[in-house]
Amino acid sequence: MAESSAKPVPLLKDELDIVIPTIRNLDFLEMWRPFFQPYHLIIVQDGDPSKVIKVPEGFDYELYNRNDINRILGPKASCISFKDSACRCFGYMVSKKKYIYTIDDDCFVAKDPSGKDINALEQHIKNILSPSTPFFFNTLYDPYREGADFVRGYPFSLREGVPTAVSHGLWLNIPDYDAPTQLVKPRERNTRYVDTVLTIPKGTLFPMCGMNLAFNRELIGPAMYFGLMGDGQPIGRYDDMWAGWCMKVICDHLGLGVKTGLPYIWHSKASNPFVNLKKEYKGIYWQEEIIPFFQAVTLPKECSSVQECYIEISKQVKEKLGKVDDYFVKLADAMVTWIEAWDELNAPSEANSSKQANGPAK
Amino acid sequence: MAESSAKPVPLLKDELDIVIPTIRNLDFLEMWRPFFQPYHLIIVQDGDPSKVIKVPEGFDYELYNRNDINRILGPKASCISFKDSACRCFGYMVSKKKYIYTIDDDCFVAKDPSGKDINALEQHIKNILSPSTPFFFNTLYDPYREGADFVRGYPFSLREGVPTAVSHGLWLNIPDYDAPTQLVKPRERNTRYVDTVLTIPKGTLFPMCGMNLAFNRELIGPAMYFGLMGDGQPIGRYDDMWAGWCMKVICDHLGLGVKTGLPYIWHSKASNPFVNLKKEYKGIYWQEEIIPFFQAVTLPKECSSVQECYIEISKQVKEKLGKVDDYFVKLADAMVTWIEAWDELNAPSEANSSKQANGPAK
Repeated sequence: MAESSAKPVPLLKDELDIVIPTIRNLDFLEMWRPFFQPYHLIIVQDGDPSKVIKVPEGFDYELYNRNDINRILGPKASCISFKDSACRCFGYMVSKKKYIYTIDDDCFVAKDPSGKDINALEQHIKNILSPSTPFFFNTLYDPYREGADFVRGYPFSLREGVPTAVSHGLWLNIPDYDAPTQLVKPRERNTRYVDTVLTIPKGTLFPMCGMNLAFNRELIGPAMYFGLMGDGQPIGRYDDMWAGWCMKVICDHLGLGVKTGLPYIWHSKASNPFVNLKKEYKGIYWQEEIIPFFQAVTLPKECSSVQECYIEISKQVKEKLGKVDDYFVKLADAMVTWIEAWDELNAPSEANSSKQANGPAK
Repeated sequence: MAESSAKPVPLLKDELDIVIPTIRNLDFLEMWRPFFQPYHLIIVQDGDPSKVIKVPEGFDYELYNRNDINRILGPKASCISFKDSACRCFGYMVSKKKYIYTIDDDCFVAKDPSGKDINALEQHIKNILSPSTPFFFNTLYDPYREGADFVRGYPFSLREGVPTAVSHGLWLNIPDYDAPTQLVKPRERNTRYVDTVLTIPKGTLFPMCGMNLAFNRELIGPAMYFGLMGDGQPIGRYDDMWAGWCMKVICDHLGLGVKTGLPYIWHSKASNPFVNLKKEYKGIYWQEEIIPFFQAVTLPKECSSVQECYIEISKQVKEKLGKVDDYFVKLADAMVTWIEAWDELNAPSEANSSKQANGPAK
């Protein structure tokens, strides 16, 4: 009994949900058991809702399939993608917790250079709970990590940092390449363990991957919409990218931080590059216009909540990207539907009670 | 003989000068002999010009003391600091090479995690010869390194990158902290080897340290002025910071890249924090105004050369920072003097002939 009381309590055990989109049995959880078992899982089942997904014993979870999504959201379910891992964002919406960690079911526990299993979730929690430094680059990277600090010449007025909204983790083994790069470099593996976490500076966009990602739902949740992808849509594999662009622009506007780097997971298996190419090719073309669009987006000062910022972006998407393709008109409408659905499921009174349940309100 | 012909020729042997500011015998070069001996050294002797600086045998060098600087620059020598390592920028000015590497004489060869000696210069040359990616962040860091590439979602139109102007290396053992941090954390050592190189994004400033730094003199040389520091000046230890701020703003304007990260050197000995505090305290106060100033600087489109950009910045320094302290009026004048002296020593015809000597002109 002395032993069990000495065990450290998992950080944020009652304040974090793990969201997993899947179409198969979740055997991959066996490897994660030591790290994930204390947490609550939200499983979003994609594809055929009549299929039964097996979850290893001992995990605490809720599972939603397409029928559940349709029942809960009614006509607003149209904003949730089908036959694409973009459906995971439904899990963000139904969670009542302050923090989300999302991981793909082909991601396993990686080892650090000393051979020790990496507790990815623990590192994400460290990232999320320490501030970010988006206004000036620190050459020794995250100044809040043990053994590091701000270097000479870093303004003292900026050393408090800003709240961290997002922690973007990386992948050993199979890197997150697009189809053309997969085709050209079929054998490339990521073997380089870069022992760092850094803040992505204000004004800089990056390609956010949804494979191994944590965020503060209270700070940025409504911006984490993974768009319209997959079944019935002209594009796939841009769900996390879309969320990343929108989220970063909003974080920059609201003075929130985004970190990337540690932790690594082990990405086991490359997806089929030919299938990917079919999903991606419009995105590869469109991103040449989407990225300059997001680099130029400015949000009016009046937009002070994530929802207000997001609705404003949806208007600009319709107006400016609508000229690129009709798809963006549809997407802009879905962005509005997403916010409506979010607010329905996360009404202020509920949010307050959930805040109380999860700890003191800010 | 077969063996010696198999030896790889040091990269850029005839196109790079190593600039070392010093007040003491250069015994530290012994440890660097395997890496530096093939290169030409420019030694800038600070302090008492009558002191004889010993350079280990076998190195090819030229040495300038204060008398030499005064003789070569005449009245314009006023722009070169005395009794401060800022004097090193005189070496940049008299070099005729395309690339500069500068290192402090208390920096030694570091070891990588496998225990192998790090050839810092070789890594800098790799950094400088491969492009930078300032317009979009790549989450696997330098996409041009072996085993890495651009990740999914990185615009293809940006994958060619831009020319790299500066490579900023880091330090194991004694980190480059300011005096207050040195005082608070006297025992902190940097032991974390972060195996990465990354581009500092456009629009982001950083604290550039002059201890372990390489740059393309043809692309950015005239911006590498280390300011007025030390003897007769109200401030020290901001020489490299000043150069870094000016340089970054100009690189952003001209579409040039700045990298930071590898290589590490072993920084042997912390300078005295009490002495440093005296040198720094005005800078610590002023940087709170200087950094917002540089974050807001805009250069007119007409400024298409480094010199034009630099003169424009000097005007804005005089106008805006002159209000903070008279020192900046003096500094702004010295910036102009520096450019005049640079252009005198690097007249276009000479530059051309030096280009011919060093390889084909661009």
